[in-house]
Amino acid sequence: MSQLTTIILAAGEGTRMRSAYPKVLHPIGGLPMLAFVMRAAQAAGAAHLGVVVGPGHDSVQALVTKETPQAEVFVQGERRGTGHAVMQARPLLERADGVVLVLFGDTPFVTVETISCLAGLIDKGAALAVAGMRPPSPAGYGRLITEEGRLLAIREDKDASPEEKKIGFCNAGLMAFRAADMLSLLEAIDSDNAQGEFYLTDAVAIANQRGLTVKAAEIAFDEVFGVNDRVQLAEAEARFQSARRRQAMMEGVSLVAPETVFFSYDTMLGRDVTVEPNVFFGPGVRVEDGVRVHGFSHLEGCVVKSGAEIGPFARLRPGADVGAKAKVGNFCEVKATTLGDGAKVNHLTYLGDASVGAGTNIGAGTITCNYDGFGKFRTEIGKGAFIGSNSSLIAPLAIGDGAYVGSGSVVTDDVAPDALAIARGRQVEKPGWAKSFRARHEKK
Amino acid sequence: MSQLTTIILAAGEGTRMRSAYPKVLHPIGGLPMLAFVMRAAQAAGAAHLGVVVGPGHDSVQALVTKETPQAEVFVQGERRGTGHAVMQARPLLERADGVVLVLFGDTPFVTVETISCLAGLIDKGAALAVAGMRPPSPAGYGRLITEEGRLLAIREDKDASPEEKKIGFCNAGLMAFRAADMLSLLEAIDSDNAQGEFYLTDAVAIANQRGLTVKAAEIAFDEVFGVNDRVQLAEAEARFQSARRRQAMMEGVSLVAPETVFFSYDTMLGRDVTVEPNVFFGPGVRVEDGVRVHGFSHLEGCVVKSGAEIGPFARLRPGADVGAKAKVGNFCEVKATTLGDGAKVNHLTYLGDASVGAGTNIGAGTITCNYDGFGKFRTEIGKGAFIGSNSSLIAPLAIGDGAYVGSGSVVTDDVAPDALAIARGRQVEKPGWAKSFRARHEKK
Amino acid sequence: MSQLTTIILAAGEGTRMRSAYPKVLHPIGGLPMLAFVMRAAQAAGAAHLGVVVGPGHDSVQALVTKETPQAEVFVQGERRGTGHAVMQARPLLERADGVVLVLFGDTPFVTVETISCLAGLIDKGAALAVAGMRPPSPAGYGRLITEEGRLLAIREDKDASPEEKKIGFCNAGLMAFRAADMLSLLEAIDSDNAQGEFYLTDAVAIANQRGLTVKAAEIAFDEVFGVNDRVQLAEAEARFQSARRRQAMMEGVSLVAPETVFFSYDTMLGRDVTVEPNVFFGPGVRVEDGVRVHGFSHLEGCVVKSGAEIGPFARLRPGADVGAKAKVGNFCEVKATTLGDGAKVNHLTYLGDASVGAGTNIGAGTITCNYDGFGKFRTEIGKGAFIGSNSSLIAPLAIGDGAYVGSGSVVTDDVAPDALAIARGRQVEKPGWAKSFRARHEKK
Repeated sequence: MSQLTTIILAAGEGTRMRSAYPKVLHPIGGLPMLAFVMRAAQAAGAAHLGVVVGPGHDSVQALVTKETPQAEVFVQGERRGTGHAVMQARPLLERADGVVLVLFGDTPFVTVETISCLAGLIDKGAALAVAGMRPPSPAGYGRLITEEGRLLAIREDKDASPEEKKIGFCNAGLMAFRAADMLSLLEAIDSDNAQGEFYLTDAVAIANQRGLTVKAAEIAFDEVFGVNDRVQLAEAEARFQSARRRQAMMEGVSLVAPETVFFSYDTMLGRDVTVEPNVFFGPGVRVEDGVRVHGFSHLEGCVVKSGAEIGPFARLRPGADVGAKAKVGNFCEVKATTLGDGAKVNHLTYLGDASVGAGTNIGAGTITCNYDGFGKFRTEIGKGAFIGSNSSLIAPLAIGDGAYVGSGSVVTDDVAPDALAIARGRQVEKPGWAKSFRARHEKK
Repeated sequence: MSQLTTIILAAGEGTRMRSAYPKVLHPIGGLPMLAFVMRAAQAAGAAHLGVVVGPGHDSVQALVTKETPQAEVFVQGERRGTGHAVMQARPLLERADGVVLVLFGDTPFVTVETISCLAGLIDKGAALAVAGMRPPSPAGYGRLITEEGRLLAIREDKDASPEEKKIGFCNAGLMAFRAADMLSLLEAIDSDNAQGEFYLTDAVAIANQRGLTVKAAEIAFDEVFGVNDRVQLAEAEARFQSARRRQAMMEGVSLVAPETVFFSYDTMLGRDVTVEPNVFFGPGVRVEDGVRVHGFSHLEGCVVKSGAEIGPFARLRPGADVGAKAKVGNFCEVKATTLGDGAKVNHLTYLGDASVGAGTNIGAGTITCNYDGFGKFRTEIGKGAFIGSNSSLIAPLAIGDGAYVGSGSVVTDDVAPDALAIARGRQVEKPGWAKSFRARHEKK
Repeated sequence: MSQLTTIILAAGEGTRMRSAYPKVLHPIGGLPMLAFVMRAAQAAGAAHLGVVVGPGHDSVQALVTKETPQAEVFVQGERRGTGHAVMQARPLLERADGVVLVLFGDTPFVTVETISCLAGLIDKGAALAVAGMRPPSPAGYGRLITEEGRLLAIREDKDASPEEKKIGFCNAGLMAFRAADMLSLLEAIDSDNAQGEFYLTDAVAIANQRGLTVKAAEIAFDEVFGVNDRVQLAEAEARFQSARRRQAMMEGVSLVAPETVFFSYDTMLGRDVTVEPNVFFGPGVRVEDGVRVHGFSHLEGCVVKSGAEIGPFARLRPGADVGAKAKVGNFCEVKATTLGDGAKVNHLTYLGDASVGAGTNIGAGTITCNYDGFGKFRTEIGKGAFIGSNSSLIAPLAIGDGAYVGSGSVVTDDVAPDALAIARGRQVEKPGWAKSFRARHEKK
């Protein structure tokens, strides 16, 4: 395949989103829409990538640079149509060789296959290739007028004759250009139309006038599902989730109620993982074979090793690394903490910035006091240890292998291996106190 | 518009609900069905409101009075049909002037527009106006027989000729009467039918016999969705939720998975609020712009100010007031408590009857001990304070600005500003204890 | 009805499940698929039950024995078709009298009515009866060729003539045999086909050749919904849940959002129980009349008595027994614990291996320390007691009726009735400490 340059148009304000943030930054499966498109271009082998952004969209520029440091960002100062937008990337177009593909930052489901297919049409001799689709109802879309495999024109809905309106094959927006012809075609586009805008689609007519070959490639309608408001954003999310759930199940994951399990773009689940209803996988989760994730669990940025058991009501935050056959139970939060194989953290516990050795049992209500208002400190607990319930572990702290902490202790000093540490008040009893307390109150 | 009097029929037992409670009290979006209908009548400007309830339905009476103190309640002692039910409100009908509207307590989705439309037909000269609808399948419904814009008759399904059965325009139940004609029409209704009941719909035939003008107004079928069993109650809830979710999204709220977010009738969410999957908004919630509500959160009767972050696994109860950019994290419950701007309550905490100053950090596992078995007491924490993890704060208690509480403390006395309070046992270590403890047990 | 013997074919590997576990063990509503089929056979009155399992499927054998101790297990060493599978149960077939029914371990929704209907056809003189169904699209299914109420042949899709392909009545798999004819028919089945397998369906042609009567009974397509991969497993689960939700609502349970409530095969809910969105009922739950289960609750193996209130964010584990009008609130876990009538456990509490008397209040953050690394010990709390917040109750422990435990106490010794127990450190204040601590850190 020829060298591939991709231009992604991402300058839209997205007014109907009613948001303070540019539209292409709104996420699907935890990843901004624009990043989906950039990743598809990269996966298709794009050598050069240009993104056209709106003025003041520094956050979009930041995302572009984070995703693909070598990508070039062009700012479209005024909104004068898609042709004008592409022309903002002129420096890149002038250097381009081979194929230039134009994608859109708000149609996140474009596939590598489609990109390759359009580029392939240029490789096979077309000067211009347009993606077409067959929407359930074509009304409103530009129709693709084809003849003997060539695309003659894109007819806007309002300009179409009754005969043309019957055509179901519609413009999907994506286009590929032969780099050598592209600038000359773009320069021929004018803004002599009602909106006074430069339309990229006009390149089709111009190329045909010049006797160049223009082709259309049919792609699935779903692939160019576009997002213009938050209802469509939610629908895009639903499509993403539905596809990911199905894929997980076909690969050997049991989802008891698939519609209640939410994946991120990079979630990885092993074979014979069972996920109960209502589980949320934020970005960066890897779960190994045979793990059971009970309902009402929220995982993000963590690793769960094989045979472990999570939840219900568990929260694993970034840096949680749960060992094989370990357990994190209800109302437990684990952050930046390694749990050894077979360790148990079953109830009402907060572990932050800690390591827990293999086989250690953390009692209910244990809290690592890892923050003093300024810094975060570590708690290191050895293997085979037993932390009694309702203990406060004041970091920095080291508790040795096999050590034992009495329930209800506030542990401030390191505990030697195999030792017992206790730190709590002595019990005092006042006989009859409760009876007279009640009597006092009940008199009132 | 003429003066508007509304009669709501709410006497049904609702046997198919299989409930100990009257049907019209079952809630949708947290509000009893009947209250939806009462609010629509009020919003349409009803000057007088009568509600006909079943015998012994004191709880319905209580709701009516709570919603609209000046509403009049009439008890229908026996169930003898809709005409009989309306006649229980005779004292109100005798005083009525202008238009009298008859609504139903178990069709909660009636709109102000429909009420106004029916009343408008009376204003324009009709003696009687009936709401008609076009159900997907008309079988079973009474058909509206119209001619030149006048409603001649309501033909019950069982009495309809084959030709009449083809009519898709059906009786939706709601009716408006010219007050001056109403009592006379109602008095002419008899119970000469198989069930021996007085049918309000017979007024149509009687009015036509008298040469009065009867009109029909078409309304959406969905608007008179009725609830007769709990499956239909759940469907009504689903319709309510679906409409509210869509409205929120169109106004600039991101719902990652709309179908998992539950609103109450009065939920208010600002722009760029993001709601993750599985969030429940009980009655009385207001969330300002830019707030992120993580999954598995349950909010009720609370205010969340702009930029704050809630959840996952957070519960805000009535009286929670979360300041701007404040945070309430996992397994935290906040009740009748004000959190200052930027305050942080991140883990496993119960705050009840408290105030927390701006920028204060509440450590993991903190509990306000606000109840002594008889009364509730307040905990006042200043700004810029730091409450160490796993502390018990025994109310009444005041902790000054900038004060510091050592982790694991049981704080019984007030803490001065900028002071440190510590209240915990000293740590004692018994070397080798754990080893011999294990040895003893493992021998067994 | 004649004596009924049932053979269940459960030897499939279920490769498309991509699982280390045999297919028939995958659960629906918490019960393995195979158990559903076994229970249907038992409910239909099967006197003898044989299950044909795959080699090495010890876990399937274990399930069979657990469900029906007197069931006989036969191992099919090689996979040579359904006819071969049934022949593994030869010892049982030789002893069988009356009717022998052949069912499948991976079609869990077979009903007692269908079993009785097939057996009834044998009782009325047929030698063989086959269940037929009308799938939405018959392509791919074997067609049932019938004439005057007799089943002449089962034509595989690939062998069907264009005329036969139009037949919508298809083989559903289930068959009933007259015991007296069965072995002889099975022995006549050969493996002269492309796959070299013995097909049970060949018995139809053989019986017809012998002039025996063969009948077909139509059953609902849904009833033989089969599970071959995890997407179908999830769909089976969804069908199960949908039916159970509807049944509960029709019986007087309010499910605010039915699609978010998950039942197990044996969940029992009383009248006027209200279940908020997002509740999971694991196996063994019984909830009495008038209970409200708030959202985000997870119940398993427990009893909740009338008028009690559970959640939100509550977890009831096996052995929890919640008294009438008692309350278990947010972030509370209750295991193997009896709560008396009106007891309250409202916040952030772990109760394990305990009993709590009527009317007792358990403060927020209370933990029963029931485990010492080796054994589990009991906590017995009397009635009318008050356990202050954030207490640690170190079992074995008895707290008397009406006793009072001060907040933040670590209780190691029994507390007498009506006494107050306090066990915590004294509070010490260091004036100005926090100010200088901050100054030190802010300088850095």
